[in-house]
Amino acid sequence: MKLSEATWTEVREADVDAALLPVGSTEQHGPHAPLGTDAMTAEAVAQAAAKRWATADTEATDDGEGTDDAVGSAVAGDLLVAPPVHVGVAEEHRAFDGTLWVSPDTFRAYVRETVESLAHHGIDRIVLVNGHGGNLEALAEVARRVSRDDASDAYAVAFTWFEAVGEHAGRMGHGGPLETAMLRHVAPDLVREERIESARDGGSARWGEWIRGVNLAHDSDEFTDNGVVGDPAEGTAALGEELLDRASEALCDVARAVVERDR
Amino acid sequence: MKLSEATWTEVREADVDAALLPVGSTEQHGPHAPLGTDAMTAEAVAQAAAKRWATADTEATDDGEGTDDAVGSAVAGDLLVAPPVHVGVAEEHRAFDGTLWVSPDTFRAYVRETVESLAHHGIDRIVLVNGHGGNLEALAEVARRVSRDDASDAYAVAFTWFEAVGEHAGRMGHGGPLETAMLRHVAPDLVREERIESARDGGSARWGEWIRGVNLAHDSDEFTDNGVVGDPAEGTAALGEELLDRASEALCDVARAVVERDR
Amino acid sequence: MKLSEATWTEVREADVDAALLPVGSTEQHGPHAPLGTDAMTAEAVAQAAAKRWATADTEATDDGEGTDDAVGSAVAGDLLVAPPVHVGVAEEHRAFDGTLWVSPDTFRAYVRETVESLAHHGIDRIVLVNGHGGNLEALAEVARRVSRDDASDAYAVAFTWFEAVGEHAGRMGHGGPLETAMLRHVAPDLVREERIESARDGGSARWGEWIRGVNLAHDSDEFTDNGVVGDPAEGTAALGEELLDRASEALCDVARAVVERDR
Amino acid sequence: MKLSEATWTEVREADVDAALLPVGSTEQHGPHAPLGTDAMTAEAVAQAAAKRWATADTEATDDGEGTDDAVGSAVAGDLLVAPPVHVGVAEEHRAFDGTLWVSPDTFRAYVRETVESLAHHGIDRIVLVNGHGGNLEALAEVARRVSRDDASDAYAVAFTWFEAVGEHAGRMGHGGPLETAMLRHVAPDLVREERIESARDGGSARWGEWIRGVNLAHDSDEFTDNGVVGDPAEGTAALGEELLDRASEALCDVARAVVERDR
Amino acid sequence: MKLSEATWTEVREADVDAALLPVGSTEQHGPHAPLGTDAMTAEAVAQAAAKRWATADTEATDDGEGTDDAVGSAVAGDLLVAPPVHVGVAEEHRAFDGTLWVSPDTFRAYVRETVESLAHHGIDRIVLVNGHGGNLEALAEVARRVSRDDASDAYAVAFTWFEAVGEHAGRMGHGGPLETAMLRHVAPDLVREERIESARDGGSARWGEWIRGVNLAHDSDEFTDNGVVGDPAEGTAALGEELLDRASEALCDVARAVVERDR
Amino acid sequence: MKLSEATWTEVREADVDAALLPVGSTEQHGPHAPLGTDAMTAEAVAQAAAKRWATADTEATDDGEGTDDAVGSAVAGDLLVAPPVHVGVAEEHRAFDGTLWVSPDTFRAYVRETVESLAHHGIDRIVLVNGHGGNLEALAEVARRVSRDDASDAYAVAFTWFEAVGEHAGRMGHGGPLETAMLRHVAPDLVREERIESARDGGSARWGEWIRGVNLAHDSDEFTDNGVVGDPAEGTAALGEELLDRASEALCDVARAVVERDR
Repeated sequence: MKLSEATWTEVREADVDAALLPVGSTEQHGPHAPLGTDAMTAEAVAQAAAKRWATADTEATDDGEGTDDAVGSAVAGDLLVAPPVHVGVAEEHRAFDGTLWVSPDTFRAYVRETVESLAHHGIDRIVLVNGHGGNLEALAEVARRVSRDDASDAYAVAFTWFEAVGEHAGRMGHGGPLETAMLRHVAPDLVREERIESARDGGSARWGEWIRGVNLAHDSDEFTDNGVVGDPAEGTAALGEELLDRASEALCDVARAVVERDR
Repeated sequence: MKLSEATWTEVREADVDAALLPVGSTEQHGPHAPLGTDAMTAEAVAQAAAKRWATADTEATDDGEGTDDAVGSAVAGDLLVAPPVHVGVAEEHRAFDGTLWVSPDTFRAYVRETVESLAHHGIDRIVLVNGHGGNLEALAEVARRVSRDDASDAYAVAFTWFEAVGEHAGRMGHGGPLETAMLRHVAPDLVREERIESARDGGSARWGEWIRGVNLAHDSDEFTDNGVVGDPAEGTAALGEELLDRASEALCDVARAVVERDR
Repeated sequence: MKLSEATWTEVREADVDAALLPVGSTEQHGPHAPLGTDAMTAEAVAQAAAKRWATADTEATDDGEGTDDAVGSAVAGDLLVAPPVHVGVAEEHRAFDGTLWVSPDTFRAYVRETVESLAHHGIDRIVLVNGHGGNLEALAEVARRVSRDDASDAYAVAFTWFEAVGEHAGRMGHGGPLETAMLRHVAPDLVREERIESARDGGSARWGEWIRGVNLAHDSDEFTDNGVVGDPAEGTAALGEELLDRASEALCDVARAVVERDR
Repeated sequence: MKLSEATWTEVREADVDAALLPVGSTEQHGPHAPLGTDAMTAEAVAQAAAKRWATADTEATDDGEGTDDAVGSAVAGDLLVAPPVHVGVAEEHRAFDGTLWVSPDTFRAYVRETVESLAHHGIDRIVLVNGHGGNLEALAEVARRVSRDDASDAYAVAFTWFEAVGEHAGRMGHGGPLETAMLRHVAPDLVREERIESARDGGSARWGEWIRGVNLAHDSDEFTDNGVVGDPAEGTAALGEELLDRASEALCDVARAVVERDR
Repeated sequence: MKLSEATWTEVREADVDAALLPVGSTEQHGPHAPLGTDAMTAEAVAQAAAKRWATADTEATDDGEGTDDAVGSAVAGDLLVAPPVHVGVAEEHRAFDGTLWVSPDTFRAYVRETVESLAHHGIDRIVLVNGHGGNLEALAEVARRVSRDDASDAYAVAFTWFEAVGEHAGRMGHGGPLETAMLRHVAPDLVREERIESARDGGSARWGEWIRGVNLAHDSDEFTDNGVVGDPAEGTAALGEELLDRASEALCDVARAVVERDR
Repeated sequence: MKLSEATWTEVREADVDAALLPVGSTEQHGPHAPLGTDAMTAEAVAQAAAKRWATADTEATDDGEGTDDAVGSAVAGDLLVAPPVHVGVAEEHRAFDGTLWVSPDTFRAYVRETVESLAHHGIDRIVLVNGHGGNLEALAEVARRVSRDDASDAYAVAFTWFEAVGEHAGRMGHGGPLETAMLRHVAPDLVREERIESARDGGSARWGEWIRGVNLAHDSDEFTDNGVVGDPAEGTAALGEELLDRASEALCDVARAVVERDR
């Protein structure tokens, strides 16, 4: 169920198991990938999970089986997908045109209060579905704060899709294999194929500039000339399809755990 | 130029005259219209204005004429459309399921810092394109604060599309003639036609509960049972087309004034 | 009952129906009118309303009649007039000497906490009696926030006197007909009669610089050389008397509605 | 020069040496003295100092003598008296009806920003003229912060009138000898003479409940039943006249030091 | 009981009467005394009081006598000494190298939240044991706020050791007799004896630059060249021993009052 | 150079290459280890690094050799060790007695302003030496913010000692092998040897409760009964010595990189 497209009466009548809040960023992703990559991928994963959840649910209802592995075994309703947060914590890319950002303080408040408004309606199991590394710390803090608040029953966790794709997780980069693959699968028109090569050549192999476990670089232009980290050419559409499948499956697992958990 | 779909290199190479930041809300719009109405309509107006601007610009470049009335006469570049803000100041609808909101403080900070990040890249002429009445005061405050800040050259104003549609402005309501018309034109599948009648019957004729110029009602459920104000049936797709045309034309006029103004 | 002049024991013994908090501004009002105009007029309206309330109340008590139109029909006690807030949201006049202001954030906090301290004593029906256009948005926000706070029973609304004077409301201006009239009635010594003519000649006809419903001017010196908007000469003392009468009557109506309303 | 009564053109033309900002409180002062005592006395002291300053100034101009002891010796202009702050830090009196307060955070911001708006106009020598003990710490903090701010030339200090009355300072109390005396001199109608005796009898001899230099009582009702500390009967109008004389003379000395000091 | 050295299981099993939170500052103390003087002395006083408390307690338990003057008469447990706050409100010493400080806002929040975490565990009687004059106002504010908070049972007061040493209090200074004496007793190695003379000669006799009860100097370098106020040579180790004895005794008295008081 | 023990004159005369700010936490570390573990270990690592730095420096000065591996090759001065921050972000341990914490907002402000006061004196290269996992995110945010601030030249990074001990890093736990080892080396008296066994038996093997890369547990008592994670018995004093050696060496490397880096 997509919140933006539903009416309030439909939300009231719906059986919402949990809400997914896609959180992205509008920031440089190299010369070949769009600034909106993080919101697009986060939303794609959330939508795919909601669809998977609904299907599993129907099946579970149909045959009453598969209680161990089916998503729907313990849940009867829908995952509600809230509209995405498009601007996040991305000041590290400020050297690259078009990058938008807010301070971590403002970002935390914005996400937290949005979640609290969901909880106001009794939708108090929430997964923050994140598509940007720079948001990670802030979202984890929001999830903790919301969940510890004795004034509400809300329980939230933060999920970052590219950390939940098994062995591929290690190849993340920035505008690299994983994001390019996902885009080629969900928004192929937005990938500038003619610049893939230059994207790779002008990028760097690793995020950051490290010494003894400490990243000395606070901004991305300190270690990548064109904003790219990793080789986007490796990110095929087929890989993208696999990533979406894996990430949405993982998200359903997380959502189920969130629904079933005693806060 | 749609910021989310552009790459940072394209933004750097572009000739951006001004940025449009669509600001919506995710809030009840009656039983017939989607919760995302305000962001959808704000974004539609911004996109239409950007298209109109580009066309006028091209024409002006082609023949060098029409300096008095064409949009492009004084401008040579593009309007950049930033991704929409989906959650705004909407606590007044909290009685209706699915309505999301943040506090005015957080909303102001979020919009202001987003605008400041645009200005960081030299995109310092900004029109906040608003689709929700409840955001009005907060956006006006943000525009003033950003523009008065001596630390930047940013100049911003707030534009609310349904106040710039001539004689129709007086019929705004909520989920009423104007919004329903606009939706029927830009997102017809999202209007629940079968509930238009009940939407009208369960709504009210006027926003608020007034005495001597003071609205006694702080929340919308104090004066409308189903969230509707005004008659959605009056909002035809043809009217929607006219509204979009008028609002985008007005927005271009405002953008031009913003570009040309000494701050 | 004037709070500043009462003792705490008298407040405890009083039967307070509601409190009026006059909110002004210390800001330029042209070369002919004092910087304190907004606080003076707001306080004058509040005092006149309190007097009117007391009289009506007494009459109602005396004869038990007039339940339809008399102020006192539904109320038995007093309106408490708190001391005025002298500094408000007035940065738009910063180009003119002597204008004082605080940020909207600080202003909202100051007014809200003052109101909350009234509510602490059980005086939880409050009308913010405003004399300055620039305070409007902020006071409306405060009234909503205070009223929605589940931790208290407070209910507040914002009333702006020059919006409650019937057909005269449209002539407001700044240091123009309405304010000059009110001053000539309540503080005639403070009107510099010898500068009325130059005030008019050096002023402007309209507040702001508008295009398509958007005010491009964030500061008043962008459209008025001497700070005046409208013709002060039209503001006779007789008009002032009428304005005070109308505004205080309207304020009593609002106060009565506030007292009688289920929050 | 009283800021509220002046026009902006007069302020521009004036030769302002420094500004005085009276800061009071609206809080219980026993059964015999008004809630507005602190603002009234602070404003009276500020007005008396401004008058004394103006007189001294004129004399100094007339004869060119008395450079050592006359106020006007080093100054040529006026003291500007800003409108009073009526609500301060007074939660300690919350047990007594009608007492108003804001949090120290909000109070500091409100006073600081008011002072900064004065400084914006070049009026950057400011004395905060305080009439309430509970404001002391907060005002000292504001004065320090304003003065240390490298973004402005402002220099401010906090002056509390009852600490500048020589040997009388030790008899302050609350609603006691000093305040009652001052009121009997500047606002005799507001002293309830018939309750002076009960005020004394129901009060206490000392502010606070002390052990080893620590006041255990955070609220005044912990040590005084009717809010009074000290014997108001001792506060004659003659004493009030002396206090006003001493305090205003001291304030002129402080203002002169502030004007002459390299920040 | 020293919190840092205890395990959580020991705290759970302990009978904690009250907690002492030493609050210092890292700031210049002249050429002869260390920057950490304030934290060292505050912690020494707190430790001495905890030891005295424990001893008195034991004795009281042993003989069941002395209920009037022994510390242990009304208490059965321990004083818990929390780890010291090393950085306080000390911007006034910013001209001297190595001085650390935070804003008063941040300091108040840091101390308050630390106290609230103690109260979370039911340790809700707290004495803030202060060693720095600049912290005084902020700590008093924190103690009031914590104690007034209806959401907890916490009761806190602020104690400044050098105000609780009887007739010696008047000789405080800065890096002067009292602090030098205390250091010579508790940390003699840290006193640079060879610079005592120059410390005295380059210092000043009095803190601040006063006129009519107002300190014109916001920073200490305005009145002392080397940061010293008072004569450190007068501060013998013997005096230090006496000061520690007096201050810790006073602190026990305060702690007992705090434990026994109805909040 | 230990800041707390130095005088301001010594700091002024010193040649400070960079400052180390130890940041700990006061929180449960199982039944066998003290609440102050994190501050103790962070301070121990900082002190060891400062000593190592000084030694290397001297040697380098002596023979002018070893430019490749000696710490002192590029630096000539001292590492200044600031006093430790004892209370951090530790609400996750609130279920265990004696744990202290402040909110992340307050912690960030406190650390940031402390760092800014160092930078005020020109000590603008700072390493935050962290001993607590819960502080990590907040310190990284502070380091970024301080370093990006155009108003100062400060450059800061966050270093967490147990992440810089090579292959041992993976065994961290909580009150487990690494912390117990370090304590046995630097503060053996504070380890309750008699409870090591029960500490291990009542603890858990892993921090958190994970599903698909998401930790469902926001508080530590959700997955460990006695607060311990990992086996403390494995943490020998010999291992502690090695850890201190490795961590201080790594810290010197980081400090050197910070000193040499163009910000």
